[in-house]
Order: sequence, then structure tokens, then C-alpha cells
Amino acid sequence: MQVRCDIIFLVLGTLYEKQNCSAARALEVVGERWSLLILRDALFSGKTRFSDFQRSLGVAPNILATRLDGFVAEGIMEVRPYGPGNRHREYVLTPKGLDFKPVVVALTMWGDRWAAPNGPPVMFEHSGCGGKIGQRLECARCNHIVKSVDVVARATRRPGRRQGSTGHD
Amino acid sequence: MQVRCDIIFLVLGTLYEKQNCSAARALEVVGERWSLLILRDALFSGKTRFSDFQRSLGVAPNILATRLDGFVAEGIMEVRPYGPGNRHREYVLTPKGLDFKPVVVALTMWGDRWAAPNGPPVMFEHSGCGGKIGQRLECARCNHIVKSVDVVARATRRPGRRQGSTGHD
Repeated sequence: MQVRCDIIFLVLGTLYEKQNCSAARALEVVGERWSLLILRDALFSGKTRFSDFQRSLGVAPNILATRLDGFVAEGIMEVRPYGPGNRHREYVLTPKGLDFKPVVVALTMWGDRWAAPNGPPVMFEHSGCGGKIGQRLECARCNHIVKSVDVVARATRRPGRRQGSTGHD
Repeated sequence: MQVRCDIIFLVLGTLYEKQNCSAARALEVVGERWSLLILRDALFSGKTRFSDFQRSLGVAPNILATRLDGFVAEGIMEVRPYGPGNRHREYVLTPKGLDFKPVVVALTMWGDRWAAPNGPPVMFEHSGCGGKIGQRLECARCNHIVKSVDVVARATRRPGRRQGSTGHD
């Protein structure tokens, strides 16, 4: 990941380096419309093949190839050969990619509440019992469900870290 | 919101309209680096004033003005006059904006796990007891904490809706 962060800093310059924010870094990786749609298809439809992504999304092949290669470079997907003579490639989510599912769920739920004038296009369900999925913020100390208004951000104190560089505190 | 969605469709064309996805729509609203950083400052630092955002982020005034106006147009912030003769404006989060907090938390936690080579720059804490915040997926039917691998997406069935247009199913 060091390489990737160096690239981000190189491209975006010192202003961004000052904004030491994991959310912004996460958005750099997947914060583009096609990237999110590709990831969504991989996470929730199990798609792995170039042709399947293309058929589902109608995205131009060059854009799709660039995005998939980007996910491989980021360690979000890995390439596996398949088919006769292993001539084809499929793009399989890594643990890092699979772990993005809660973010897609959170984004979707906000979009459902505030940006879906015709109602939510999909529901998230528990595969075990078919119940509706909800997302909760929970306190590890008191075990209470925490309202989002009661979540505060505190800068961590690390050796050599510049004070006040997160913008959170 | 209808107006906004129409604008999205107008700009991005029919391919995007086919991708009926609340997550993608959410990303359209905040899926830009400065937008996320501004929203983060508003959500977690309580910033409301142009000059405070600018000082914190070091963003060019024209970019900041455009992003803040965009948030107002989206109903994520509202403008309130303040100061002598109400000559100044502050940008205050609406319920729609405040509700974005769990998305920033989810994005940040993913970034902390996978894109923070020097460790998480901030911690999210419960303001009540100082405990560490965790994010859980929970089933409304069986009340179990659900692993993300056990979350599936199911297309909702609405009158007149085109089958298979979500890419989730």
C-alpha cells in the first residue's frame, strides 16, 4: 500500500498529503462511478469475467479494462486464468475487495433514503433467513447502539505525526 | 430529488439510467475528494464557515464555493446568515447531510484497514463513554449480527420497473 499512497501524494500534492484521511484514501480507490458499479457487480452478483461485467454495465471495453487493471494493482481483485489452455482471465475479489461490501451497503442505504425518488431499487437481505439488513454503530465499551450524532472523531497520537493534520479533530 | 436525478440522467445518459443503483447516486453527490473532505469537516469538526473550511483544507476558494453551493443545491447543507447585519453566510448540515455520517465511518474504517500504512489517523469514539465505535450489519428478522459474506442483494419488484436493471440481482 505504501506504493499506492506515494502515488496518491505524488499526483495530488501536498494539500492532499496534509489531509490524512482514510475515507478520502478509500474514495481515491473506488470513488468513480464505473469503479463502484464494477465492484457492486463483483460483490453482489459474483461476476468475475470481463464479458459479464461488460454485458451487465454496458461500459466501453477500454474503460472496463482500465478499471479492472486498477483493482488488480490495488490488490482489490486478482487475476486467475480459466478455460481451455487457461487462455481466459477472470477477476476475483481478494479479502480487501470483499471487505468493501459494508461501504457499498452504507452508500446504498443513504442513497435509498435520500436519492431514490422511486423507492429503493434493491433490498439487502440476510442469506440465512431472508430478513432485512440494517447497519448499526455500536460502542465496544458500553455495547450500546450509538446514534450517529454521538459518534466523534479523535486524532490518534503517533510518534512524529503532525498535530492537527487530519481535519477531524 | 427528482430534479437532481433528472440532471444525473441528462449528464450521464441512458447507460447510467439503466444502472438503477442508490450507491452510485450517492457517490454522484459526494464522490469527489474535496466534497468528502468538506463533508467530513462539517460532520466531525462542526465547521460551518467558508473561512474555516478553507483554512482547514487549503482548498482554492472557487472550488470550495462550488462544492458548498452544490451541497446547498442537493439539500445536504443550508445557508444561514450570521454576524453584524447578517452579512455573512454559514453552511449548516441538514438532516440529509447529517445522515451521511455512517457512510464516512464505513469508508474510513475500510481505508484504515487497507489503505493506512502508518495506522489509522483518527479513531471514532462514542461521545457518551469514549468507547471505540464499530459498525455492524444486523438482521431485522433473526437479530443476528450478519457477516458481510451473508448479505445478499435482491431487486425490489415495482410496477413498471424493468427487470434486471440493477445489476445487483
